[in-house]
Amino acid sequence: MSEQPVVPDVAAPAGRGPLLEVVGLAAYVRLGLFGIIGQHTWDAPDLASSQRMLAIGLRVGEQQGRLLAIGASHGVEPVELMRPFAGVLDSFEARTPESSWWEGLLKGVVGHGVASDLCRLLARGLPGDLAAQVVGAMEYTDDDERATSIVRAGVEADGRLGSRLALWGRRVVGESLSLSQALLTTRPSFGELARAAMPATVAPEGPSADVVAWVLGELTAEHTRRMDRMGLAA
Amino acid sequence: MSEQPVVPDVAAPAGRGPLLEVVGLAAYVRLGLFGIIGQHTWDAPDLASSQRMLAIGLRVGEQQGRLLAIGASHGVEPVELMRPFAGVLDSFEARTPESSWWEGLLKGVVGHGVASDLCRLLARGLPGDLAAQVVGAMEYTDDDERATSIVRAGVEADGRLGSRLALWGRRVVGESLSLSQALLTTRPSFGELARAAMPATVAPEGPSADVVAWVLGELTAEHTRRMDRMGLAA
Repeated sequence: MSEQPVVPDVAAPAGRGPLLEVVGLAAYVRLGLFGIIGQHTWDAPDLASSQRMLAIGLRVGEQQGRLLAIGASHGVEPVELMRPFAGVLDSFEARTPESSWWEGLLKGVVGHGVASDLCRLLARGLPGDLAAQVVGAMEYTDDDERATSIVRAGVEADGRLGSRLALWGRRVVGESLSLSQALLTTRPSFGELARAAMPATVAPEGPSADVVAWVLGELTAEHTRRMDRMGLAA
Repeated sequence: MSEQPVVPDVAAPAGRGPLLEVVGLAAYVRLGLFGIIGQHTWDAPDLASSQRMLAIGLRVGEQQGRLLAIGASHGVEPVELMRPFAGVLDSFEARTPESSWWEGLLKGVVGHGVASDLCRLLARGLPGDLAAQVVGAMEYTDDDERATSIVRAGVEADGRLGSRLALWGRRVVGESLSLSQALLTTRPSFGELARAAMPATVAPEGPSADVVAWVLGELTAEHTRRMDRMGLAA
């Protein structure tokens, strides 16, 4: 579109603040997830799965709407809010080309699951009220369950699918953790939020590398639980 | 999914009634449109267009929700409601493979625009209250405008895009009208609804072929207006 050129991955304007950073990333991740879900709605294996994908897409979109509303309440429009993150998922997408509908679905569940977990974790580093506001906007236990339940039902019906998807999940989570690490190390506000989110018992005074290691450990643990819920070996 | 096998295109159960037929087709068309929109959300030319696609997808999904609610109020679950139409868009999709993001977007606007116009027209053949209920559920002037405004802005910025899209629109509308004709001639309740929707001045007693011709004329006229709004030659 002429009025909105393709946006490169640029640094956040100075003084934008960690709240808008987290909210912007979370909103952008949801835009990406909406795209993955939409892309796999029509070629789902049957009508019931198509309809479930649409329902999941709607919840993701509503969630994004709540995040955009937080940005708007600070005077930042949707595109401006997400602009600093435009393109950050491109490498992830390019490195995880799915070869089936199931792989595409799992990519959404695992890849964007990790990214959402990262956003939730970072949000916990915000001051109390803001943390609750952002984490609340990102809540969708139901729909996460629904997406995982589609995978779980497929895996239960076809053991070979389970083996293939378990392997695929390892590939996707590896790329997701790389992306998370890159975000943590290149965006100072994220490193600070992660440090603030660490429990006091986990050496909060240590070097940044320890913070990153702690975050990746947390994300991996959440990933393992998510894979368990789908009946897949992490 | 094991619990929901792929559903062939089967005839509606006897006694299902024209209301549920129209609502089922309209809901299914929206499921297809949601898929097209979602598929083209992520690879939009820029962030602003991606976000618009998401917003349009949400409105389409909300609209489908209102249609599914009509089915539910008659005791018919979403998948059952749409099942008679599963697959009816497959041939249309197979015959209109887009070669660019713009073509995909226009396919959604034109192809599903015609299908939605058909549903609205058929709904007008229902008894008064039901007609208003179904047409009301399908209203989304705003979003239709938004999708067309994306195309219009692109065409204004690039005249050659306009020429290519005008040609593409003719191809898509041809396939859309073929599909509409097939639905009218193979599903008796649609033929009867169309006849009931005809103004009394337009020979409502004539043979079915006249009814079909009248419907196709109406759909073509709406298509022409839609292309005009986008600055494209119909």
